Amino acid sequence: MSSNTFGNEFCVTTWGESHGAAVGCVVDGCPAGLKIAEADIQKDLDRRKPGQSDVMTSRGEKDKVKVLSGVFEGKTLGTPISMIVMNEDVDSSSYKPLMNKPRPGHADLTWQEKFHIRDWRGGGRASARETVGRVAAGAVAKKLLFETLGARVIAYTKSIGGVEAMGMEITDVCHCKDIIYSNPIRALDLERAKEMEEEIRATKAKGNSLGGIIECVVFNVPAGLGEPVFDKLSADLAKAVCSIPAVKGVEFGLGFEAAGMKGSEANDAITVKKGKIVTRTNNAGGINGGISNGMPIVLRVAIKPTASIGIEQETVDMKSKKTAKIKIEGRHDPCIVPRAVPIVEAMVALVLADHGIRSGAIPRTLA
Amino acid sequence: MSSNTFGNEFCVTTWGESHGAAVGCVVDGCPAGLKIAEADIQKDLDRRKPGQSDVMTSRGEKDKVKVLSGVFEGKTLGTPISMIVMNEDVDSSSYKPLMNKPRPGHADLTWQEKFHIRDWRGGGRASARETVGRVAAGAVAKKLLFETLGARVIAYTKSIGGVEAMGMEITDVCHCKDIIYSNPIRALDLERAKEMEEEIRATKAKGNSLGGIIECVVFNVPAGLGEPVFDKLSADLAKAVCSIPAVKGVEFGLGFEAAGMKGSEANDAITVKKGKIVTRTNNAGGINGGISNGMPIVLRVAIKPTASIGIEQETVDMKSKKTAKIKIEGRHDPCIVPRAVPIVEAMVALVLADHGIRSGAIPRTLA
Amino acid sequence: MSSNTFGNEFCVTTWGESHGAAVGCVVDGCPAGLKIAEADIQKDLDRRKPGQSDVMTSRGEKDKVKVLSGVFEGKTLGTPISMIVMNEDVDSSSYKPLMNKPRPGHADLTWQEKFHIRDWRGGGRASARETVGRVAAGAVAKKLLFETLGARVIAYTKSIGGVEAMGMEITDVCHCKDIIYSNPIRALDLERAKEMEEEIRATKAKGNSLGGIIECVVFNVPAGLGEPVFDKLSADLAKAVCSIPAVKGVEFGLGFEAAGMKGSEANDAITVKKGKIVTRTNNAGGINGGISNGMPIVLRVAIKPTASIGIEQETVDMKSKKTAKIKIEGRHDPCIVPRAVPIVEAMVALVLADHGIRSGAIPRTLA
Amino acid sequence: MSSNTFGNEFCVTTWGESHGAAVGCVVDGCPAGLKIAEADIQKDLDRRKPGQSDVMTSRGEKDKVKVLSGVFEGKTLGTPISMIVMNEDVDSSSYKPLMNKPRPGHADLTWQEKFHIRDWRGGGRASARETVGRVAAGAVAKKLLFETLGARVIAYTKSIGGVEAMGMEITDVCHCKDIIYSNPIRALDLERAKEMEEEIRATKAKGNSLGGIIECVVFNVPAGLGEPVFDKLSADLAKAVCSIPAVKGVEFGLGFEAAGMKGSEANDAITVKKGKIVTRTNNAGGINGGISNGMPIVLRVAIKPTASIGIEQETVDMKSKKTAKIKIEGRHDPCIVPRAVPIVEAMVALVLADHGIRSGAIPRTLA
Repeated sequence: MSSNTFGNEFCVTTWGESHGAAVGCVVDGCPAGLKIAEADIQKDLDRRKPGQSDVMTSRGEKDKVKVLSGVFEGKTLGTPISMIVMNEDVDSSSYKPLMNKPRPGHADLTWQEKFHIRDWRGGGRASARETVGRVAAGAVAKKLLFETLGARVIAYTKSIGGVEAMGMEITDVCHCKDIIYSNPIRALDLERAKEMEEEIRATKAKGNSLGGIIECVVFNVPAGLGEPVFDKLSADLAKAVCSIPAVKGVEFGLGFEAAGMKGSEANDAITVKKGKIVTRTNNAGGINGGISNGMPIVLRVAIKPTASIGIEQETVDMKSKKTAKIKIEGRHDPCIVPRAVPIVEAMVALVLADHGIRSGAIPRTLA
Repeated sequence: MSSNTFGNEFCVTTWGESHGAAVGCVVDGCPAGLKIAEADIQKDLDRRKPGQSDVMTSRGEKDKVKVLSGVFEGKTLGTPISMIVMNEDVDSSSYKPLMNKPRPGHADLTWQEKFHIRDWRGGGRASARETVGRVAAGAVAKKLLFETLGARVIAYTKSIGGVEAMGMEITDVCHCKDIIYSNPIRALDLERAKEMEEEIRATKAKGNSLGGIIECVVFNVPAGLGEPVFDKLSADLAKAVCSIPAVKGVEFGLGFEAAGMKGSEANDAITVKKGKIVTRTNNAGGINGGISNGMPIVLRVAIKPTASIGIEQETVDMKSKKTAKIKIEGRHDPCIVPRAVPIVEAMVALVLADHGIRSGAIPRTLA
Repeated sequence: MSSNTFGNEFCVTTWGESHGAAVGCVVDGCPAGLKIAEADIQKDLDRRKPGQSDVMTSRGEKDKVKVLSGVFEGKTLGTPISMIVMNEDVDSSSYKPLMNKPRPGHADLTWQEKFHIRDWRGGGRASARETVGRVAAGAVAKKLLFETLGARVIAYTKSIGGVEAMGMEITDVCHCKDIIYSNPIRALDLERAKEMEEEIRATKAKGNSLGGIIECVVFNVPAGLGEPVFDKLSADLAKAVCSIPAVKGVEFGLGFEAAGMKGSEANDAITVKKGKIVTRTNNAGGINGGISNGMPIVLRVAIKPTASIGIEQETVDMKSKKTAKIKIEGRHDPCIVPRAVPIVEAMVALVLADHGIRSGAIPRTLA
Repeated sequence: MSSNTFGNEFCVTTWGESHGAAVGCVVDGCPAGLKIAEADIQKDLDRRKPGQSDVMTSRGEKDKVKVLSGVFEGKTLGTPISMIVMNEDVDSSSYKPLMNKPRPGHADLTWQEKFHIRDWRGGGRASARETVGRVAAGAVAKKLLFETLGARVIAYTKSIGGVEAMGMEITDVCHCKDIIYSNPIRALDLERAKEMEEEIRATKAKGNSLGGIIECVVFNVPAGLGEPVFDKLSADLAKAVCSIPAVKGVEFGLGFEAAGMKGSEANDAITVKKGKIVTRTNNAGGINGGISNGMPIVLRVAIKPTASIGIEQETVDMKSKKTAKIKIEGRHDPCIVPRAVPIVEAMVALVLADHGIRSGAIPRTLA
């Protein structure tokens, strides 16, 4: 029950500290015979990497992935896939003064209280840099989902600060992904994306930070994924996204809005379309009783504002137990939401690949 | 990786169908030497049982628990605790006409598509009756948390339909629990509870149903619970509550509200109080970086309106694949929120007991 | 990671103390749609139950099983199967004097040192009575193996004391099982069975006890079961049988004998028979590299002599830490081997059912 | 339930193919604050590496380990420890002709039947080269066991071919290890080691191979390790060693010999020595009822002769399904036993570290 391993059948173990030698992951349980290339994985890592625009941190990592095992002549072997990304642009100088002064909103204090030792450089293992391994593994999961089920995962920024994007219909996932990654906000609504961008710049200028909401939709998930009563698809998705740094909530379909509705409004009428049993609406977000119903999976994730801000804050010196003030220097994302978009996609893909195998919808070998 | 087992160290396996012979659970991993009596467990089952008021289903179960193993001379042995509750007031007649007609918003359709067979009587295993086992196990977890850490879990109804309870400070958990269970809504705010009660009655009269929000707070959780990077305390709590029937979302501390705030507003300033490092506010809901920080754990759960309504709905005959209409008869809760309150408590307690043991805060044996 | 749960996909959790209210188990992960009746399970329990002959303990348990969940109209639902057997003929009087005096060769001392509390009545949870749950679960596993793969598990006594049975060819499993259960020794070789029986009687008369070796063969296991590198079929079988009380060793195919052989003698030549790739010999016991090769699985289990003997032994009073003498009264098997035969079968069946599902050879639903 | 991950609390995931880019492992769950250096790990890898003498394969790997994460300023962080060893001396040429011709006694056929694809170069993932990761992880486990419990694991060759070493008392583990690694056989009995060496050379000269038995003893294991009823210490040790390539059996204490003994001979009398409850003999091998009793853990492992032999053997062309002959060229160990000695040590150490943490005997953090 390694706490750095996620999944039951399709599993990923991530490893690495922010300013250590490297970060990486081992994917186990991927069926044999899946065509996969480093380029498939690099594509997603490029979408996550820092320094893509001025609304992101300027840490200059290329994040080039190397696949060390589990792939032979372009296909998976059914054996563990080990992937590594070196840490190249490391600058620990701005963290040294904070070694004993936990940053508010960060894991410095809790990590120290739990382990009594920590790598304070760049947040160590609590840094979002750990998610490199998740994104690499997620890229394999996405390939598997698409090749076996035709399923596609898409996530995008729904709101940042107070600015909310309009609901956009997704008819062509590839096209929509192009739109999403054409703007630094990773929104589908390009107009509001501009507003969000400005909001981030203005907030950044004041040394402050913003949060937001990411929506994720998965198309072509067959009915039958999810294992009641505890390993419900919704339960495992909730765990997956709530394990991402800075996430403070998750909801499915109507989510919290459903709490204020009547049964007659929230229930999705069942009907037949082209010989297939479907629902007229998708208030449930594609999941009933914890099992996928064949409609698109829809979930939203709340991301809190980046904890690292340039404004002076109260804290405590852990050694002397005296109060202190800090002002956080260094390179930080003023809003982590855009870079969290591919991370949400990765975690959702990992859960679906896992449940695809558990349910039997994805076979054990494709060879 | 039994999907009917929850937990890593403190584990519960639930079993049973709604209209089968019995329901129950096996708790494994409870430390030896914990004083526990059937009365401790019965108390929580009584708070969950049907028929406590006219805003609940009239199914007349006494839900008397019997402990079959794992307890000797009033103390746990460190061996599996098997608990059983007989199903006594079973009436399957109203379900027979629905055998092939899945109820909108229910798990009938997905369950059938997954397993190709199901016990259609009373929802079978997808019924909330399954949660009897969770509540029984949760009662053991609560006892363990209190005896070893002094920790206390308290949940209450925050809103039903549109009616929202006022925020009430909890200074005395026992006293507050008395208030909560003195009203059929399980709210702390007795005034709004009255309004909610009327809202339920009015909705029920129209054959419709309501949802709501439950808030749960845990006091005296020591810093250090939670296992990064995947088994974060928040991630496991999210999974736990999202595995409860009808839950559509969860949030921690500020939750979704944080998504619209600035870092300077959301961060909790760190300070020292009576020699202990604490935070001035508790926007994080007691969790930083997935690890408890010593402040109260705070989470909220969105419950959708009961899917079973008396109003005519569209569905499909699964055999003929023709559209059909249904009107659901039988005994149902017009709003499941009040009865879900002890279930949320149970699931939260299970996670904390599990993480208490994992972190070493709770010893392996108390004997 | 409940230590009272076994299996990854096809899981069993056993519960119960020897002199508690009942013993039982919960089977989770059995595919839906398997025809199963209480009689299928009772048959194996009857083969394990005490008092079948004068070479067994005289404890008079009927061991009637009751299935409480997971089966509907004669078929499994894919939900947990809860099974219970009441403890009816309990006599704790002879254990009271031994409460603080650990019996040599038993788990009294280690259990006390681990948990600091134990149910001393009849060995509590360390009693072989716990295996009732294993045998009940194993009966379900055997049914599943036979219905989906045509696989059959058969175990029998190979030796007792110094008396070794001749090797007998198994051509008809059902017929051989009839032979095995026609003699109290559970041997295939009826002649040697007589000798073993007399050996047990003579040893029992002197207040002493015997051990022996059980061989288990599984026919019709398809190639491909077993998950390298850690969950090899042999590794999981080894764990399974070594978790049975009194087991001190396990070997596969040639086993320990292979250690003294040359590669040219131990290797099984590969050839083709009726269009199927097979091996000429089966020195490997049906497993290569931890994966089944399609040949019969063959393993042997060493069982130590029953620890409870009527001869005076040295021990210690755990309270006073002074040496003491004990002579164990009560009802005991002078040789546990015959009753362990169906237990070995059960554990082997559980592993194969589990790996059958993991490998995809057994589908998730038969409905 | 990754099948390439071993352990519940102290976990190792190994990865890598024999002729791929590298092999390695990720250790998760090692308590924080353990002093560890690459040299600690290198020492054990050096004892396992090929080419140490003429009774071993001549593959010329230096097996230099690099620690990529989880260690900071010489101490473990409580985060995953990623370790990597490059594959440097790879020669796949001799394997190409065997691509479709499975080698008798090897995993070629079963691997192909399971995955339908395999890396045929050097045995791919089924190669014993995979154990590099186990030995690296085992070195961390040994350090942990010694630093927290003073426990020491020692394994040595007990027999090879027909030659059996004399029983030697182990009074000083360090001194005995020096003896063991002073001879290429890894025996304690230097006289018989010479005989074994000659036996291997003679057998190798004929193109044949040998097996043998390894004994492993663990000193200073406290009472109380092992989790009944399934995760018994003996059960988990059995799984651990049976997951090592070429292992065909395992036994504890008296092992198979106990099957032929009387209870009065096999039971260990309990007594008091220096205020501590101990047993006069150690027939049980340090484990009663699956829980350590404080006496040394003793187990023996049967290793079959190396499957790769230079003598012509029968096989089948998997494509044409026609019989064929093969004679295996390439670099192989004529007897794997000496190199398996540190692998057995590693697997045993992994189980004990895991159970040490599970039982609470080893704390979660040493910092």
